[in-house]
Amino acid sequence: MLLAAWLNGKVINHLDVQERGFAYGDGIFSTIDIHNGQAQLLSLHWQRIQKSCLRLQITDDFLEQWQRDFESFMAHYPHCICKIIISRGCGGRGYLPDAQALPNCYFLAYQRQQHPASHQQGINTTFLEQCLGLNPLLAGHKHLNRLEQVLLRQELASLGYPEGIVCDIQGRVVEGVFSNLFMVKNHVIYTPDLQQAGVAGVMRQHILHLAQHLQYSVSVTDLLPSDFLTADEVFFCNSVYGIWPVKQLQDTLYSANPITQHLQANLYHV
Amino acid sequence: MLLAAWLNGKVINHLDVQERGFAYGDGIFSTIDIHNGQAQLLSLHWQRIQKSCLRLQITDDFLEQWQRDFESFMAHYPHCICKIIISRGCGGRGYLPDAQALPNCYFLAYQRQQHPASHQQGINTTFLEQCLGLNPLLAGHKHLNRLEQVLLRQELASLGYPEGIVCDIQGRVVEGVFSNLFMVKNHVIYTPDLQQAGVAGVMRQHILHLAQHLQYSVSVTDLLPSDFLTADEVFFCNSVYGIWPVKQLQDTLYSANPITQHLQANLYHV
Repeated sequence: MLLAAWLNGKVINHLDVQERGFAYGDGIFSTIDIHNGQAQLLSLHWQRIQKSCLRLQITDDFLEQWQRDFESFMAHYPHCICKIIISRGCGGRGYLPDAQALPNCYFLAYQRQQHPASHQQGINTTFLEQCLGLNPLLAGHKHLNRLEQVLLRQELASLGYPEGIVCDIQGRVVEGVFSNLFMVKNHVIYTPDLQQAGVAGVMRQHILHLAQHLQYSVSVTDLLPSDFLTADEVFFCNSVYGIWPVKQLQDTLYSANPITQHLQANLYHV
Repeated sequence: MLLAAWLNGKVINHLDVQERGFAYGDGIFSTIDIHNGQAQLLSLHWQRIQKSCLRLQITDDFLEQWQRDFESFMAHYPHCICKIIISRGCGGRGYLPDAQALPNCYFLAYQRQQHPASHQQGINTTFLEQCLGLNPLLAGHKHLNRLEQVLLRQELASLGYPEGIVCDIQGRVVEGVFSNLFMVKNHVIYTPDLQQAGVAGVMRQHILHLAQHLQYSVSVTDLLPSDFLTADEVFFCNSVYGIWPVKQLQDTLYSANPITQHLQANLYHV
């Protein structure tokens, strides 16, 4: 349920009809868990926003103002899921942006989601049938062009699993529908390279740092379904729910997940 | 300049904050030239809208209502460029649509664009550097996920050409930035296959019909830059400006374009 919406520091009830986020998905977003007035991994979220603005050539001149507005927003909504959306602004002639337009910074507060607590102990999952396209121009960025995820989320709902594994059209494993994905084999932690497809989540970034801090070997590389089916451990992550270990993937059972548990136990301690 | 906006038959000044077109680009659009109260190629526009709704699993139960509303809209705005947007509606939990939500049908009226009349005689063009991704799940559909076109349109503006030729990441020619693309060689008319990338424009569809009606051989197939550089004629098309012949592509001059002119002369006579 939507609790509130702000645009550039002010409460709004509506969007401008000429908002380019609506016309073309011309913007980016980030989803942040705010609990007791604290936003988890906040600096990583802003780093990613800044990096994506650079890629899309949306000016980040207002970054410090956005960050100050966000502090004020957190004071008003100390318990929520906040979606930050940065769009290129309004108008322009067709695809060509208006050179004068300024970016828009939205904060949308939603009730905190209640995922079943049991998912922290492990979930069952499967590979989805629909595949992600390849798009090196935009891969890795959490932009507003998310039709693939909408279609995948509907496929996932029809299958009844809490999360599913998505491959690209060349058969590489990429991510979950709303999560990133890791596997462990022979004490090495692996996650798919996202140069061609996928969203480089903030929790994925955090876990890559955390794993190195905990002295694990880490590899970001191309991975196939067979790699996951023969892994020792598999887990999903995102910045709202943290880590979900995988108990079963199709016919493969992961009987123990000590490294996943080690990461879970230290998730916010670094 | 935006003249008016309607939602489901009523004038609006704003959008709902929870519009999924804004959140995820979860919808489709079509751009129609309305002149003297007549919409060119209207039935093809509605056919494409229906086909894309089917692909995205957006219900088209309201199609006849949308069409009636559009007649009323044309009576109010008999001279405009109309953008029809069909979105999946509002809300839902993250990517998963609200099962109860109804689609939204928007009509946005803009002032008719004044492309230079000389473009009907021919333009110079070039290949763009940025490439389209591959996305068989969504290719061909004019959906709201148009970040690639926004980036390409900016590249085009920086080069100063009226239109540019875009390839996919595997080097095949796909389309223009806001147009489809044809070539003629040895009296056969060719246009790129759009199974992997690109937008199947209504004017492209119309020209494929027209060419067959005029007894030309037509081929929809994979084409490379070298095919265009060695073609007899090349032209762009879209449903607002019709056909723009190409006079020069990089170092290649197209000295005459009789078949393109034949198509131009008969464009709305079939």
